[in-house]
Amino acid sequence: MYIPTFEDMLAARDRVKPYVHRTPVLTSEFLDDLTGAKLFFKCENFQKAGAFKVRGACNAVFGLSDDMLEKGVATHSSGNHALSLSYAAGRRGIPCYVVMPRTAPQAKKDAVRGYGGIITECEPSTSSREAVFAKVQAETGAEFVHPYNDPRVIAGQGTCSAELIEQAENLDMVIAPIGGGGMISGTCLTLSNLAPNIKIYAAEPEQADDAARSFKAGHIIADDAPVTVADGLKVPLKELTWHFVSNHVTDILTASESEIVDAMKLIWKRMKIVMEPSSAVPLATILKNKDMFAGKRVGIIITGGNVDLDSLPWMET
Amino acid sequence: MYIPTFEDMLAARDRVKPYVHRTPVLTSEFLDDLTGAKLFFKCENFQKAGAFKVRGACNAVFGLSDDMLEKGVATHSSGNHALSLSYAAGRRGIPCYVVMPRTAPQAKKDAVRGYGGIITECEPSTSSREAVFAKVQAETGAEFVHPYNDPRVIAGQGTCSAELIEQAENLDMVIAPIGGGGMISGTCLTLSNLAPNIKIYAAEPEQADDAARSFKAGHIIADDAPVTVADGLKVPLKELTWHFVSNHVTDILTASESEIVDAMKLIWKRMKIVMEPSSAVPLATILKNKDMFAGKRVGIIITGGNVDLDSLPWMET
Repeated sequence: MYIPTFEDMLAARDRVKPYVHRTPVLTSEFLDDLTGAKLFFKCENFQKAGAFKVRGACNAVFGLSDDMLEKGVATHSSGNHALSLSYAAGRRGIPCYVVMPRTAPQAKKDAVRGYGGIITECEPSTSSREAVFAKVQAETGAEFVHPYNDPRVIAGQGTCSAELIEQAENLDMVIAPIGGGGMISGTCLTLSNLAPNIKIYAAEPEQADDAARSFKAGHIIADDAPVTVADGLKVPLKELTWHFVSNHVTDILTASESEIVDAMKLIWKRMKIVMEPSSAVPLATILKNKDMFAGKRVGIIITGGNVDLDSLPWMET
Repeated sequence: MYIPTFEDMLAARDRVKPYVHRTPVLTSEFLDDLTGAKLFFKCENFQKAGAFKVRGACNAVFGLSDDMLEKGVATHSSGNHALSLSYAAGRRGIPCYVVMPRTAPQAKKDAVRGYGGIITECEPSTSSREAVFAKVQAETGAEFVHPYNDPRVIAGQGTCSAELIEQAENLDMVIAPIGGGGMISGTCLTLSNLAPNIKIYAAEPEQADDAARSFKAGHIIADDAPVTVADGLKVPLKELTWHFVSNHVTDILTASESEIVDAMKLIWKRMKIVMEPSSAVPLATILKNKDMFAGKRVGIIITGGNVDLDSLPWMET
């Protein structure tokens, strides 16, 4: 297992710079008053392809050796990683093969195709996904880029907090949502080198709290298909991300489904930004643990903005 | 009739500076590709109280003479002006009296009260509103601040385009929605002095096209209660705003209800910002008049972001 280094993050920063936005950091007097903290929202919902994942995807794609270019890249994902890898591959002019369940929403398939991704459908089961993916990879010889358990991806995600600490000085804490742990791992990689005094918190849905339970247990616990509105956070930790989480994270906080939806709506209403349910989990955990954050300068990573505008979570209840 | 001067705008700029945001200008590669133009979105949806109206309201409130402070300010509005005037009065620590129809949404009443506004309810008719407002004004002696037909308000709104042309250089055109014409008048005031080569366009719902018909006819035409999703744009031009519109606007373009809703959803989806239907009218008109804007550098004023998240227009159909 190769663990990405600080030098890998620095190289990633130069590599991805032409292809990703330096996203803005927004503040909200209202939310500061409500929480008692000073909050700095790093808005990766404004990122290319709508999410931070494009950082890791671009680092992987633009770091590919020349002999791999013709074969391209491949992944199995129905979320932001598929979009981001398709975007990155398109910018480099190489093929991107995406295995997606045939039941994935048409809008997601259209979005992947819109960025030039080549979709192969599988049945909505792990066994089918793995079988179909193995076949695609064998036929194309494409380089597999895992959504998070990949040193290139983690080094790429680390560029986000490198920007954040330039844009918001003297932070006491940074908090980000945790699913597979790619963003949190990149954050650990960067901050443990550049700003080791900043405490790193992860935020997770109560209904998909495998990372929180892993953190307490001291080893990876993987849940089978948890159900949560924060659909980017259903996947389990893997070896690489566990390495960073177990070594550098201060704590993993959780929030209920209704707390997540309330926090999401509050951010939309007050900050006038469109972001995903996953991105609301950090604020939800801050609101229920105010004493931990009061008086602190807190960086919050708004991870993405790809949400189905026809089916917003507060309208489903 | 006192017509505000460029010096009034410069004074407004200094006066409101501590109380309003210098809002960001966002761009979208996707929307540039779609329109063939280079678009610069001046995001007043991120403004204090959620809309550009706070500029004019602050200029009026902070320009009040000392002997008026105790009596405060008053208006009749159920929209962003009521919010903005309440915010401004709250910052100066003076009372703000707002006459609102008793049928106005509870959320709007709550928002006005949240900023410290004192609401007096009237029946939902013009006669009741005028009678109740006259009574409130007589009892309080408060200074009436009209939502747009007021030189202090127009000078305040003019500070928006003064920022825009610093943030986005060499614009060929600026386009903004038109209702009563306060924002357009402020834009005319500023640009006719600072950048007279920039053409000014106004954008209006087809279903509330009284400004477009006035423009063609050469005199003010006022409609009675037009129906449109762009609920900030239902009010008619008045003498002061007609002065600016008739002298400085190049053309007034219109869009249908479905074109407005489509443009709104497109901006939410692609730019990840929450904005009002009114703010989508300019993009809707650009999309249906692509030849006019292709190859041009176009400033678009996103006027506000106060929208009911529980009832979005694309969900009502």
